[in-house]
Amino acid sequence: MNVLVVGGAGFVGCHLIDSLIENGHNVTCVDNYSRGKEENISHLVGSEKFSFHRLDATNIDELSDVFKDTNITYVFQLAANSDIQASSLSPLIEYRNTYSTTFAVLECMRRFNVKKLFFSSTSAVYGDMTGQMVSESNSSLKPISYYGAAKLGAEAMIHAYSFMNDISALIFRFPNVIGSRLTHGVIYDFIMRLKDDPSCLKVLGDGNQTKPYMHISDLISGIIKLIDIDDRVAVYNIGVNTRTTVTRIAEIVIEQMGLTGIPINYTGGKEGWRGDVPEFAYNLDKIHETGWRASMTSDEAVRLTVQEAIR
Amino acid sequence: MNVLVVGGAGFVGCHLIDSLIENGHNVTCVDNYSRGKEENISHLVGSEKFSFHRLDATNIDELSDVFKDTNITYVFQLAANSDIQASSLSPLIEYRNTYSTTFAVLECMRRFNVKKLFFSSTSAVYGDMTGQMVSESNSSLKPISYYGAAKLGAEAMIHAYSFMNDISALIFRFPNVIGSRLTHGVIYDFIMRLKDDPSCLKVLGDGNQTKPYMHISDLISGIIKLIDIDDRVAVYNIGVNTRTTVTRIAEIVIEQMGLTGIPINYTGGKEGWRGDVPEFAYNLDKIHETGWRASMTSDEAVRLTVQEAIR
Repeated sequence: MNVLVVGGAGFVGCHLIDSLIENGHNVTCVDNYSRGKEENISHLVGSEKFSFHRLDATNIDELSDVFKDTNITYVFQLAANSDIQASSLSPLIEYRNTYSTTFAVLECMRRFNVKKLFFSSTSAVYGDMTGQMVSESNSSLKPISYYGAAKLGAEAMIHAYSFMNDISALIFRFPNVIGSRLTHGVIYDFIMRLKDDPSCLKVLGDGNQTKPYMHISDLISGIIKLIDIDDRVAVYNIGVNTRTTVTRIAEIVIEQMGLTGIPINYTGGKEGWRGDVPEFAYNLDKIHETGWRASMTSDEAVRLTVQEAIR
Repeated sequence: MNVLVVGGAGFVGCHLIDSLIENGHNVTCVDNYSRGKEENISHLVGSEKFSFHRLDATNIDELSDVFKDTNITYVFQLAANSDIQASSLSPLIEYRNTYSTTFAVLECMRRFNVKKLFFSSTSAVYGDMTGQMVSESNSSLKPISYYGAAKLGAEAMIHAYSFMNDISALIFRFPNVIGSRLTHGVIYDFIMRLKDDPSCLKVLGDGNQTKPYMHISDLISGIIKLIDIDDRVAVYNIGVNTRTTVTRIAEIVIEQMGLTGIPINYTGGKEGWRGDVPEFAYNLDKIHETGWRASMTSDEAVRLTVQEAIR
């Protein structure tokens, strides 16, 4: 089928496009390179199955032109700010890049009668749920970051567009996703800091923050497996049952970089920065019932990611 | 205190301003007259306690100027599209007038360090909950209208801004609110139709849609009573325990207009129009525990509203 990947030059998008093309689909990619990178999709340029439009997905008119020219049957809306730390100082980034892009995509789907949507949501919609195993039906949706709030608002708008226009939507709430072509986040930061100065490693917080990290290959396998689900709006937590502390990540990075005896200097405190959720764990029963399961533990995903990054 | 009422020339806003001024506060009002009306606030012009700025609250720069010039301690964000039927055909109205106005207000509060917010949310955040008594902790937030989705997205953003900036927010989820200076809705429609042609009354749907209608004076008494609540984000359903069917509204309008023997012609069907929630009922335990209670039943509110409208 003809699919549109909005935000396709980003970390998740480029891996998804590779997989969609392998599965025989024709992919139209839209990106404005705000977080995405030309090098992520450069290997696809020239392929008959791939076309690219550089544009800002908040621009409904320009996005409409893409819908007009291409007989799209499935939209993957991945365009978003993905650097929560950056937007914690500048909430407008989330209003524009996360919420408004999704609104524009939905509005184009309505105008051009496209009925299938995949949307990348986030664990951040739940807010701070320390000590709880959070399921999709959890009633406490109190995001503490502008990013989580923009994604939750986007989910709400998907519900309304779905009802009003008979759109079928698959929503995955992503955990921390890692792997090759990753451009930011704690693993990336640690590698950069050690390349810069291998004498010690500075860590924000006390190192005890613990989250599930999933490898991008597992995320993509989940999307491809559930792509044909035909509920009105199907919401799934996707992730791994294991978790990795920040200290363990630091140890894996140091070990994989072949370094020894590096002191770790903690800045202290529970949160790395305000709006960060210090600890979370997913209830994954719903997605496991579909038969999908991550192939790697959180520690394995971290180790593979470090290997891919320093290769 | 110095308060800002955004959307203050609208139906709820103008009643709230009257009450705030009666209670001794200085009111700055912002409105772009998209739904609000000059005549709603014309009686206040010239008062020392009142100032007005005509501007579009999505314009952060213009709104910032108001915050810059006035030492505001409390913001009432009421600016929104209030005609759900109109936006069902044009979702951009909700993106702009309901979501983006709230985002801009929050962003100005962050920049100018204002710590107290009242926000008018809606029963529409719950979606279609026919047959259930919906409480604030209900986990099924699946709006079916663009209006409900924009309000739910705004609530999510309030949670994030509250956490990030220590803002204390009071959120009321309004039912159908009626009373003098109302400009649209079923009561207004019925009166207009009968003034136009008193030989019969056309009713969308089958007349069995039933909702709680609350008089504006009861809503305002609830806001004033809870204005000092100091939770981080306090969400309340506000409303009445009784409900009124569309047929009963038609009967009350006909009776109050002194008409008799008017045939009611139903267009049929469960929904009046797509995105309308045919039936809903609130669990009001949380707000009743504060001591607040509506003074009028739903039928009494409808009757008084008709009397005020045809007076």
